[in-house]
Amino acid sequence: MDQYAHLVKLFLQGLDQYRLSIAKSEPVELYQPEDYILGLGGKRLRPLLALIACDIFDKEPALALDSALCVELFHNFSLIHDDILDAAPLRRNHATVHKKWNTNIAILSGDMMLVKAFQALQNYSAEEFMQLSAVFSKTSIEVCEGQQMDMNFEKEKSVSEENYLKMITCKTAVLLGCSLQMGAINARGDKEDQTNLYEFGKHLGIAFQLLDDYLDAYAQTPEFGKQIGGDILANKKTYLLIKAYALANQYQRKELDRLINLDGTNSEEKINGVKHIFNELAVTSTCLQLADEHTRLAITHLDNVKAGESKKNHLKDFALELLKRRS
Amino acid sequence: MDQYAHLVKLFLQGLDQYRLSIAKSEPVELYQPEDYILGLGGKRLRPLLALIACDIFDKEPALALDSALCVELFHNFSLIHDDILDAAPLRRNHATVHKKWNTNIAILSGDMMLVKAFQALQNYSAEEFMQLSAVFSKTSIEVCEGQQMDMNFEKEKSVSEENYLKMITCKTAVLLGCSLQMGAINARGDKEDQTNLYEFGKHLGIAFQLLDDYLDAYAQTPEFGKQIGGDILANKKTYLLIKAYALANQYQRKELDRLINLDGTNSEEKINGVKHIFNELAVTSTCLQLADEHTRLAITHLDNVKAGESKKNHLKDFALELLKRRS
Repeated sequence: MDQYAHLVKLFLQGLDQYRLSIAKSEPVELYQPEDYILGLGGKRLRPLLALIACDIFDKEPALALDSALCVELFHNFSLIHDDILDAAPLRRNHATVHKKWNTNIAILSGDMMLVKAFQALQNYSAEEFMQLSAVFSKTSIEVCEGQQMDMNFEKEKSVSEENYLKMITCKTAVLLGCSLQMGAINARGDKEDQTNLYEFGKHLGIAFQLLDDYLDAYAQTPEFGKQIGGDILANKKTYLLIKAYALANQYQRKELDRLINLDGTNSEEKINGVKHIFNELAVTSTCLQLADEHTRLAITHLDNVKAGESKKNHLKDFALELLKRRS
Repeated sequence: MDQYAHLVKLFLQGLDQYRLSIAKSEPVELYQPEDYILGLGGKRLRPLLALIACDIFDKEPALALDSALCVELFHNFSLIHDDILDAAPLRRNHATVHKKWNTNIAILSGDMMLVKAFQALQNYSAEEFMQLSAVFSKTSIEVCEGQQMDMNFEKEKSVSEENYLKMITCKTAVLLGCSLQMGAINARGDKEDQTNLYEFGKHLGIAFQLLDDYLDAYAQTPEFGKQIGGDILANKKTYLLIKAYALANQYQRKELDRLINLDGTNSEEKINGVKHIFNELAVTSTCLQLADEHTRLAITHLDNVKAGESKKNHLKDFALELLKRRS
């Protein structure tokens, strides 16, 4: 991400300014959680994509700062509420908002951040504001839908590959596409370029999520930062498990059912057993292949953007680097 | 409300159309709660105010239909989330969303409705969309702030009259003002008229809430629909209680403290005791006086709107009728 260090810095300066502007707002129970979660860090990938998309058309990246703030506020709103839904105690190694304060405050401060995401756009011209709001609200609804689909999957016996891909597209990928499109709107890119950048981000997001599923079971390095096999232990319906069920013969299906019903004391047997079936059915290579396909699709869309090759290559390198760190 | 029956009908037709448009949307866990709460009825006061404000300038009230939908979606989003915060089992005699489904679904479907409130405005021209979004997002943030202040008051030993008025202004009154202003924007009313209608709605809302506090303790008719003294039993910091504490001498304060700490078995003693002190300190008449003041302020703002007297008188009658039903 070094090639974009200046853009990350630009965003963080803007974010600091925003945080300063809310520092004395009341009631503090509403604004402290907002400041807290915005201060927890993270890659700032979504705001960075907005700035990159503006920069790619040789426009001042600062033009996209409010769009960047909008998507970062939205992302953090969704983290606060998702952490309630998942009853998660930790976020980036710090207490989640509903743990540090309480669930009511987490609901309400999240609501407020969602409104503030829309409000962040209102310094743009009316025409730009309208275009930005349209793609942003469409995306926000899809993110809610994706989150609900993910919750539904937990209770469903079987999930189709199609629905799984739809879920990760909505829950993760469209916000990356939206961030890029918003930056392109700020740069006055035409509709075609906007769509190509949106699709680039969307397919990148899908590839990203598929690799995440793969890495959960097969990461070699501690860099990944999560427990290897965590998804398997939690019976999470990842692409690997969904595909394995779809391809399994009756014996493999029976064995998968048995392994899934194993309790926590047999975690090694469970992880190794499930991975053994993954290997038998070659679902890992299917997963990596599909991630590759979406990466290629992403790159094709980027290639079609009417912008300088050098900046497009930078973005391509950045995308591949992001994916590489996941494989 | 008979004089506006045609506007209520117009809104309900628009609402039916909207509900039809989401009827087949998926995941159903997200859209059924939205349809459910929108179908629970209610006075539809906020959307009606948007249509009335547009109509007052002799413009087609249908111009304000999307603004009306916006404020109704927002109001219902806030009901869903507030019911979680209050752990309320019932809303308009039906199960609340978090009871009928679960808290996670209530959080997420509420989030989606908040986004849809913003999205409802996007068929307006860019300029109108911008003006509407600005007043709507400002108001939405104030509603969140008011809700948080209300939650804070529950835990605070003493609340000032100033903060109490600020809370009811944010939690209830500004959305009435916003609904009217949005209708005025749709009618292309000038800035001054917009502000006067906003202030009319705001002061009406404050008067409305003060009367609500009064009626909780002193309603004579069963029409009010709530248990008489319910706020007193719940130790709710109403205007009456706040003012009573402010005016009490040390003996009265001691007696108030004693009554507030009475457990549920002495409900009659508690209600009568607290009301006795209210009477001694004449806080009921102070409350009614303040409600009157805000009603007068509201009417003055309405008088200043540059619109036909007949339509303004209709609205005045309607406002006074609304307040009368509360006193």
